[in-house]
Amino acid sequence: MEISDWRKKIDEVDEQIVRLINQRAEAARAIGQLKQKSSLPVYEPQREKAVFEHVRSVNPGPLSSTEVVDIFERIIDVMRALQRTHD
Amino acid sequence: MEISDWRKKIDEVDEQIVRLINQRAEAARAIGQLKQKSSLPVYEPQREKAVFEHVRSVNPGPLSSTEVVDIFERIIDVMRALQRTHD
Repeated sequence: MEISDWRKKIDEVDEQIVRLINQRAEAARAIGQLKQKSSLPVYEPQREKAVFEHVRSVNPGPLSSTEVVDIFERIIDVMRALQRTHD
Repeated sequence: MEISDWRKKIDEVDEQIVRLINQRAEAARAIGQLKQKSSLPVYEPQREKAVFEHVRSVNPGPLSSTEVVDIFERIIDVMRALQRTHD
């Protein structure tokens, strides 16, 4: 495969990632609304820790756990802001 | 649905995201090897710009383009480091 073939593959993968992070955002928004109703805090360090543990545990590689967690830290940051602003 | 149900859904979505970012890493690594063979630079600002354009263009929401690009900036950072270190 040439560079252009791999890039086509990456574009397809990216479309799926975009779809999934939007599904994740829908779920985070729903949780944000439930938290607001129950006066629960947006920031729950225990849950964030559990998310990182989970993604480490299902990581098949070649990315290292640190690389996967680096990406999920950004995903969580964006989702946390979403819970704060869209409720 | 309760918070715990949404979290189950998020965990399932996260498993798919982990799988996809690893597929993306495999492709990025293959491209890194092809670039090395052809003495092409790892950092290609035009290609990175095209990736951001692409993910913006396929974003269905509710995430904003800025939020999607924020996440992909981190993904690209991790992949660029991978092309530098794993060749």
